[in-house]
Amino acid sequence: MHIQIVGLHAPHAPRLRALLGPGHEVEALQAFPEAGAIAADVVIANSVSDSEAARLRCRLLQVPGAGSEQIAMQSLPAGTTVCNVHGHEVPIAEFVLHAILEHSLRLWQYPQTLDADAWAQAYAQRAPHDEAHGKTVAILGFGHIGQEIARRARAFGMHVIAVTRSGRQAPALAEPLAHEFVAVSALDEVLPRAQVLVVCCPLDDSTRGLIGARQLALLPAQALLVNVARAEVVDEPALYEALRDGRLGRAVLDVWYQYPKKGQPPVAPSRWPLHALPNVRATPHISAITPALLERRYRFMADNIARLRQGEPLRNVIHTAR
Amino acid sequence: MHIQIVGLHAPHAPRLRALLGPGHEVEALQAFPEAGAIAADVVIANSVSDSEAARLRCRLLQVPGAGSEQIAMQSLPAGTTVCNVHGHEVPIAEFVLHAILEHSLRLWQYPQTLDADAWAQAYAQRAPHDEAHGKTVAILGFGHIGQEIARRARAFGMHVIAVTRSGRQAPALAEPLAHEFVAVSALDEVLPRAQVLVVCCPLDDSTRGLIGARQLALLPAQALLVNVARAEVVDEPALYEALRDGRLGRAVLDVWYQYPKKGQPPVAPSRWPLHALPNVRATPHISAITPALLERRYRFMADNIARLRQGEPLRNVIHTAR
Repeated sequence: MHIQIVGLHAPHAPRLRALLGPGHEVEALQAFPEAGAIAADVVIANSVSDSEAARLRCRLLQVPGAGSEQIAMQSLPAGTTVCNVHGHEVPIAEFVLHAILEHSLRLWQYPQTLDADAWAQAYAQRAPHDEAHGKTVAILGFGHIGQEIARRARAFGMHVIAVTRSGRQAPALAEPLAHEFVAVSALDEVLPRAQVLVVCCPLDDSTRGLIGARQLALLPAQALLVNVARAEVVDEPALYEALRDGRLGRAVLDVWYQYPKKGQPPVAPSRWPLHALPNVRATPHISAITPALLERRYRFMADNIARLRQGEPLRNVIHTAR
Repeated sequence: MHIQIVGLHAPHAPRLRALLGPGHEVEALQAFPEAGAIAADVVIANSVSDSEAARLRCRLLQVPGAGSEQIAMQSLPAGTTVCNVHGHEVPIAEFVLHAILEHSLRLWQYPQTLDADAWAQAYAQRAPHDEAHGKTVAILGFGHIGQEIARRARAFGMHVIAVTRSGRQAPALAEPLAHEFVAVSALDEVLPRAQVLVVCCPLDDSTRGLIGARQLALLPAQALLVNVARAEVVDEPALYEALRDGRLGRAVLDVWYQYPKKGQPPVAPSRWPLHALPNVRATPHISAITPALLERRYRFMADNIARLRQGEPLRNVIHTAR
């Protein structure tokens, strides 16, 4: 089997080699060649342009993450199967719960270094903080990530509202993970109750800009917004203005409106100075990046490669080009 | 019913009045009178000296917190019932889980402000962080606080070891809250597995200095220690040295070795510069301080007063004077 890992994931080629047995050639490429056929049994890449897709000659295009919006599906040659991989729901749920607890605890209101004077003053004041317990969290999108957030939020005594396309829980789930399931068409009814709004739905035509100025205004005062999906689900200037004016309490943003591109000058993560507001925690798209995640994902991808080799059904097929 | 709130809690009299129906007189006193009988149906106070206790003529002495070490139990007239109130386990458990997630996420390794250059660099590196999932947490002391920490840690897929005097779960609990129960006499066996050690046991002769240099050395490299009990359970110079030398990864400390005292010059929270180490998060004993805690506690106390009035059994009886 000939496997090419192209782009961001190229440095992980040794990890994949260690997981695959003999009889596999794993090739690491910084980028796709600029012309000519791209021939391998398996190509691992999270970004494939139209021109690159048209030149692919592989049986399996394995996306090394969950999101496939940078894959030009429509240009893939017939017969190419595209798979993605999950496992990121564990660290992302931890990131989101950390954001919720940080918002409640407000540790920044206490002295950063407890010298004698700061200690005396802080102990006399005993400034209160808040609790997550009893608060309502609305989870927009209830796939792998939303469900793992719900499991953890419930353990904290939070009231969990899942906002989904259908307004119903996926029938495969035995136990109800949310206290309420609401269709996205009734989002306006949910927002005024959501002290925390977590955005973790896919980006598509129905979700782009779904959270705009009107929706942000419906949230209660001092609400927390956490976005671990794609930035564009939340309208960029509306988010900036709501935070700047203090109508929205705080935002923890791990996903952005502008990304660095190779060979181009650096860009700010937002066209508005969103990332520099004091009530924004701006992280560089790292919520899922853990060694344990890579272990889980590469084990999954090695298993998919073994399935391809043995003619068994692939897992996580998200597209088959015709 | 005649109720007196005396001392620190006197300002909360209006809160209690609002919770009790008609037929209750709630009196707020800055301090107990210096002589004469202290007569009421219910006295709410968290500090009662020998002389004050001897002059109490009440049926219920309701302590408005969990700790009763400032109540002179031995001097109370026969027939006085003493109750305390919990509720602090909720915010303290949130504080502890925040500390665990913060230790895993290591957000401090990412740029604090994502300008274009920082964004380009951070996105290219994608420095990984850790996960709480799959880690082992040892909880020293498994009362109300330890149990609430366990409930939440389990939702994160952590392995929970409860370290208690008996090494058994309290029989009143229906479901097992920890994966393992270990007697404190076997602590040495637990420590090498504990990536997180949470101290939440009472301070007494058996726990003072329980975590010393030898115990800290048994913890795995880069372990996290969280203390929300009393500082003296952990040996002060041993803790300082382990953190300074990087043998212990990090400590989150909300309780301290020296407290400010009225009319005395400010003191540092530790005789060693523990609070100034970069791998210490030092908070000024605030883990339980939330408005919701007071709400829960006053609702509990109002319910206990209603029980007294109706001749029903009181809740949280910790002492009956004979």
